[in-house]
Amino acid sequence: MYRPQNLRIPGPTVVPQAVLAASARPMINHRGPEFAALLAALTRALQDFLRTQGDVLTLTASGSGAMEAAIANTLSRGDKVLVFINGAFGERFYAICKAYGVDARRIDVTLGRAVEPELVRDELAKEKGKDGAKAVLIQHNETSTGVLNPIKEISEVVRESGKLFIVDSISGAGAAELEIDEWGIDVCMTASQKAWGAPPGVSIVTMSERAWKFYEKSDLPKSYFDLAAAKAALEKGSTPATPAVSVYIALQEALRLMAEEGLEAILRRHSNLARATRRGLQALNVTLFADEAHASPAVTAFRPPTRVDARNLIRVLRDDYDTIVAGGQGKLDGQLVRVGHLGFVTLQDILNFFSALELALRDFNQPVEPGQAIAAALRAYAESAPQPTRSGARGGARPDTVGSRR
Amino acid sequence: MYRPQNLRIPGPTVVPQAVLAASARPMINHRGPEFAALLAALTRALQDFLRTQGDVLTLTASGSGAMEAAIANTLSRGDKVLVFINGAFGERFYAICKAYGVDARRIDVTLGRAVEPELVRDELAKEKGKDGAKAVLIQHNETSTGVLNPIKEISEVVRESGKLFIVDSISGAGAAELEIDEWGIDVCMTASQKAWGAPPGVSIVTMSERAWKFYEKSDLPKSYFDLAAAKAALEKGSTPATPAVSVYIALQEALRLMAEEGLEAILRRHSNLARATRRGLQALNVTLFADEAHASPAVTAFRPPTRVDARNLIRVLRDDYDTIVAGGQGKLDGQLVRVGHLGFVTLQDILNFFSALELALRDFNQPVEPGQAIAAALRAYAESAPQPTRSGARGGARPDTVGSRR
Repeated sequence: MYRPQNLRIPGPTVVPQAVLAASARPMINHRGPEFAALLAALTRALQDFLRTQGDVLTLTASGSGAMEAAIANTLSRGDKVLVFINGAFGERFYAICKAYGVDARRIDVTLGRAVEPELVRDELAKEKGKDGAKAVLIQHNETSTGVLNPIKEISEVVRESGKLFIVDSISGAGAAELEIDEWGIDVCMTASQKAWGAPPGVSIVTMSERAWKFYEKSDLPKSYFDLAAAKAALEKGSTPATPAVSVYIALQEALRLMAEEGLEAILRRHSNLARATRRGLQALNVTLFADEAHASPAVTAFRPPTRVDARNLIRVLRDDYDTIVAGGQGKLDGQLVRVGHLGFVTLQDILNFFSALELALRDFNQPVEPGQAIAAALRAYAESAPQPTRSGARGGARPDTVGSRR
Repeated sequence: MYRPQNLRIPGPTVVPQAVLAASARPMINHRGPEFAALLAALTRALQDFLRTQGDVLTLTASGSGAMEAAIANTLSRGDKVLVFINGAFGERFYAICKAYGVDARRIDVTLGRAVEPELVRDELAKEKGKDGAKAVLIQHNETSTGVLNPIKEISEVVRESGKLFIVDSISGAGAAELEIDEWGIDVCMTASQKAWGAPPGVSIVTMSERAWKFYEKSDLPKSYFDLAAAKAALEKGSTPATPAVSVYIALQEALRLMAEEGLEAILRRHSNLARATRRGLQALNVTLFADEAHASPAVTAFRPPTRVDARNLIRVLRDDYDTIVAGGQGKLDGQLVRVGHLGFVTLQDILNFFSALELALRDFNQPVEPGQAIAAALRAYAESAPQPTRSGARGGARPDTVGSRR
């Protein structure tokens, strides 16, 4: 039966038809000139989007592998580090540190709230001197709660401290402003299936010059995730182990589409669609989970109305309306619904999501008028900052983003 | 320009059109029931092909990641192990051990020769008692030389010793006989882009009950490659981190095609095509690198004629004849040509390879008659063990394997 899905999870994101088609090209030799050219072009494109002249290294692994690589390549057994945690991916950083014998001190922030620069400053003040922590680990976009930590402001504090700055921007990069070099991020990671709109299987780690100095002293075991090996291979147009060739090809095609749109327009689209999503949800009287001041442009989490069970709502959306959203993670399991709006997402995708949500909530006997959320989302979108369009018009006629021609 | 390639490297192998098409299906939720069903079916199919009732765990990583997982999940810092090395992948096992602080003793065998069971017995005799080595690490098919180690016979020796038996069958499984349970292999690994004919990105590790006992005592750091986490997630129909969804879908489709052919027929096809390849090469007076008694059914390595440089020959095959073969690895760099004949390979692919090789050698002023190798390969194929065919005939009319309808 033909039942196209509206895949509205925060990754894997919808993969455009052109990218899917690219991923189905015949296999090529991963040690030949064709792959070398692809890897070089892809690396340059990623440097552009990540705003770094530093090393951009790719791994055949998902984002968690890149998080592990960040730790294993820069730290040593017994090193003290600070891990700021406001969700499941902060927990993951902490768990990886523990697995490797890194002495991580966790600083927990209320779920749904951002890590504030003042908190980072206060905690760093306790870590001065040679016995102090060596590194700060934090999420840019905490996918599990829909909170965007203010990394720009936090980076100023961390830079002053001289600590190594490791930022998980797996679901942030390409969706939210990120200036790796300008902000002084030493190690940053992202993954193909997030804002990049390619299938999962390739993750990306950036390394600053300072990060390589930490690499020299690092004694944690690393082989598959050894970034110096990845760098040496990259310089020869290759990877240390067999790369996920079809995902690399797909990622390159996705980056080509993104370059056509331009980073600025992409970030504005994410911001506008995120706001439209929040306004639509608010029109349904559900409770947004994240602090509005730090709401993510990539994913919005909400608590369903009181008498609606989150898991049931997710199931009805899926089974009856072919709309796939995510639930809560870790401590928030069963409490949240999370809707992804990152990657190649269009206004139409968001309106489709609301059409499903409105009907589903009515199935739960909630007082919802058809069109109520859609109208609010459209209103918010119409009021959002102007976007350049092909036709020069703005408002209703946005040929690039309204349609869903994939 | 339309220039289809004859991809004759020992992985990534040619991906059939049906598998490519499957890999281009729209993205799905990796946490939903559709992926759970896929993962369960794929795991069962792999258990069938790998001949094990033990745990079969998948990782989003290439084969080297699976090799690392095998070590990190069963061994501890300072553990003594024996690593038998007859090629670049034996070197890789050794390097991973070293990276993790495992006390590996290397036993080197002349490149091109197999590791003989007697050698294993002699070396194990030195490792008795509680100070002896805990594990034996070895390749099944050493991709870099085209040697198939006699794992069945070696397994008898290792079983007697009670050591943990870790076998890299990355390029062997699905191409050469492998009986994981019957032979008592504790940890075995393979990868999607080898005989399985899917794109790279998914690797596979099997764990025996005994291997899990070693897991309990293992103190090496593991997070992304933690196989207990993979097992726990699998039991819930999922993976600990985001899986390479499109590669999983492709692998499932490839396994479906393989199940139609049947394991026995697949192994016979590999054996017959490998023999045809060797006979064709011998007809060209090139030197086969591997000992004939242990020649691999998956890949054949040869030294080009004296006045032909291996790298140049590989380049001419690629640039002038669209035929992609591999060179030597490690110490054999620049000395060998390696032709892959694993996965969804047909007789036609082998004859196409020879047509290119014959012409290329003539370009190097070698005394080659057009058709000389092709005739020898065809003769060897015609003499090979009968195969069941759809039509009931045998010989020239083998509808399943002669054509290259991908």
